[in-house]
Amino acid sequence: MSGTTLDDYTGRYAARVHGMAQSEIRALFSVANRPEVVSLAGGNPYTAALPFDDLEEMFSRLLHDSGPKSFMYCPGQGDPRLREAIADVLELTGIRASADDLVLTTGAQQGLDLLARTFLDPGDIVLAEGPTYVGALGVFQAAQADVRHLPMDAQGLIPAGLEEALRKLETQGREAKFLYTVPTYQNPAGVTLSEERRDEILTIAERYGLLVIEDDPYSMITFEDEPPKPLRARVERGVIYLGTVSKIFAAGLRLGWVLAPPAVRDKLLLAVEASILCPPALTQEATRRFLTEMEWQQQVKVFTTLYQERRDALLGALSDYMPQGTSWTRPEGGMFVWLDLPAGLDSKAMLPRALSERVAYVPGTGFYSDGDGAAHMRLNFSFPTSDEIREGVRRLGGVISDERRLRDAFTADTE
Amino acid sequence: MSGTTLDDYTGRYAARVHGMAQSEIRALFSVANRPEVVSLAGGNPYTAALPFDDLEEMFSRLLHDSGPKSFMYCPGQGDPRLREAIADVLELTGIRASADDLVLTTGAQQGLDLLARTFLDPGDIVLAEGPTYVGALGVFQAAQADVRHLPMDAQGLIPAGLEEALRKLETQGREAKFLYTVPTYQNPAGVTLSEERRDEILTIAERYGLLVIEDDPYSMITFEDEPPKPLRARVERGVIYLGTVSKIFAAGLRLGWVLAPPAVRDKLLLAVEASILCPPALTQEATRRFLTEMEWQQQVKVFTTLYQERRDALLGALSDYMPQGTSWTRPEGGMFVWLDLPAGLDSKAMLPRALSERVAYVPGTGFYSDGDGAAHMRLNFSFPTSDEIREGVRRLGGVISDERRLRDAFTADTE
Repeated sequence: MSGTTLDDYTGRYAARVHGMAQSEIRALFSVANRPEVVSLAGGNPYTAALPFDDLEEMFSRLLHDSGPKSFMYCPGQGDPRLREAIADVLELTGIRASADDLVLTTGAQQGLDLLARTFLDPGDIVLAEGPTYVGALGVFQAAQADVRHLPMDAQGLIPAGLEEALRKLETQGREAKFLYTVPTYQNPAGVTLSEERRDEILTIAERYGLLVIEDDPYSMITFEDEPPKPLRARVERGVIYLGTVSKIFAAGLRLGWVLAPPAVRDKLLLAVEASILCPPALTQEATRRFLTEMEWQQQVKVFTTLYQERRDALLGALSDYMPQGTSWTRPEGGMFVWLDLPAGLDSKAMLPRALSERVAYVPGTGFYSDGDGAAHMRLNFSFPTSDEIREGVRRLGGVISDERRLRDAFTADTE
Repeated sequence: MSGTTLDDYTGRYAARVHGMAQSEIRALFSVANRPEVVSLAGGNPYTAALPFDDLEEMFSRLLHDSGPKSFMYCPGQGDPRLREAIADVLELTGIRASADDLVLTTGAQQGLDLLARTFLDPGDIVLAEGPTYVGALGVFQAAQADVRHLPMDAQGLIPAGLEEALRKLETQGREAKFLYTVPTYQNPAGVTLSEERRDEILTIAERYGLLVIEDDPYSMITFEDEPPKPLRARVERGVIYLGTVSKIFAAGLRLGWVLAPPAVRDKLLLAVEASILCPPALTQEATRRFLTEMEWQQQVKVFTTLYQERRDALLGALSDYMPQGTSWTRPEGGMFVWLDLPAGLDSKAMLPRALSERVAYVPGTGFYSDGDGAAHMRLNFSFPTSDEIREGVRRLGGVISDERRLRDAFTADTE
């Protein structure tokens, strides 16, 4: 298992999307892939914490009891029994959904991609948090959409910012096709839309007739007693909801779902059939058995306990090693911390130096469509161990301090 | 395992694509799903013939030796070791490919879909056999392409027909974006492009600068001593090759690949990452182990032996039960026979009657973009047993004979 590398999907993807030259990327990776590099760049859940003995038994049963079916084509919408099981999972988050309104996809990523294909024409405006999920930017870029970032703070998306953007578009005679949002334990920012703001955002969306796409991979990876309810649990109309087993079970199954009103669901289903015929029957059946035959909520607790320890290790190390002028978010769940560099520092320019000091992160520019974000970086705490995290942050603190000194020297020189 | 139903991906999909009303489809399926109906409509490999005891051992090893990795994200292009194994498989068909030129996808279907996204703008012309694979039509329809069907006979695509189409386009100042072809054991027609014609088609394509997309799911499901080599084995330039494990291992893994020149491969890779991040690691690792640790060629032999028996049962039963004026193809591999009805009969109009006689098929209209094909139907021989096939064809023969009598009576009345 190679965990301590930059060459994981989000790191590489962020670099690809945001136009670093292939040669630059290759050079970085050839360094970052070395085992001595601590990677805080990743986006991988810690799958080594899965109960492989129990999984072995489960797969035995699967092969014995439903082997032929699990190796065959299945309905494009996905196995109805799995959709029932997912509807039961959603109910735990406060979402009441009919299995019939769920469409299963190759990860929630594909759900978003097919929604983009369904809704977006080139040039269409999409609203999204700034920063936002790099994979969403990839989808919107492929759809040639015009992404407008909205401001966030520690309580998530700022309602006044959304309203201002909508008002401005209105005066220009334009409109946004939808708001894409990750309201809970956001990737990359690690912040969560507060209870109060959830209602405000929904009220504004309703007033302007704005469709909301809620991407919710992390809300079960919570360090709180009770995470805020998803937007889709508050209203049924106007919100399309994306979910996944990537964080509660396994990203390597690539199993996600879209919960959408019937008219959208029907279009999505045609799109799924055209693009993949149907999601893999094997990963569906494994997921169905995980959700119905195994102690899956216990397993989620295993993940969250582990990630909480690692989050604590990350926050502790940041306090210990970061120079003045650096600040960061304090996530109550999920897998990421967002770090603001001291004024004048550039996370992308600094990456080669960080790699030579054997620590990797994703520069903030990966999470903006417009080149913004250089003053920030994303740090992951789900995959590296607490010790690795502490060592990585120690190295990173050194790099940032050095860069800060260089900046100060340069500033002094040129004053 | 529900095999004897119309409600499988190709049947339902064909109906969807070609505009039967949802209510009509539902009514048909509610009948077709009854266990007493023999379905010759399906497109399912006979997965019950897989060696589940061996697979159980393989999955045990997989979970023990590479569990965490198999449940994690993986590179967007697909696991390099699996791509090496696939390159070795391709070599058996005469194709020399570098693992680096392969991009793995959620079934070959997604490969085609992403190629369509990469190459096609609305209104672009695509050439394809008539009839052609229904899933390809779904992709081209989603891309708003203009599909032009080319004539086939028992030796497959007719070179003169291709050349005529290209010449005609040239005089109109237009061009086709590519030729989509299933040269070997075609779905749905069951015919194979002859050795001689393969070279002719490639020569014409080269002369006109026509890109060829070769879809090759069936060439290993052969009843011949040596099937013709794929087009891609004859030329490296100008042919993009789609492959899949759906027929040699399991369709329920949804694992396919595109073999493309570097420039196309790079675009595809970005498209894969935007649409699904990466194919499922679990199904990739299962496939890799199938291709490297198991007697997979022996398993392919098991499938082909079984399908050959069933093909023989189908051809025998057709000889015994079909009325005069009916004809059909004699496939040397694959899973399908294409049947031409007696003059004046309509396979779509006849379907409700067939279902009431407890036999199902896919009407030929599903395999044309333009409403053509009503005089034909597709019959599957991979999934139903030989006894079921014989009984199904007996029932179908009765239906066609009845329809023929009705037609004759009607013709006599109106003469």
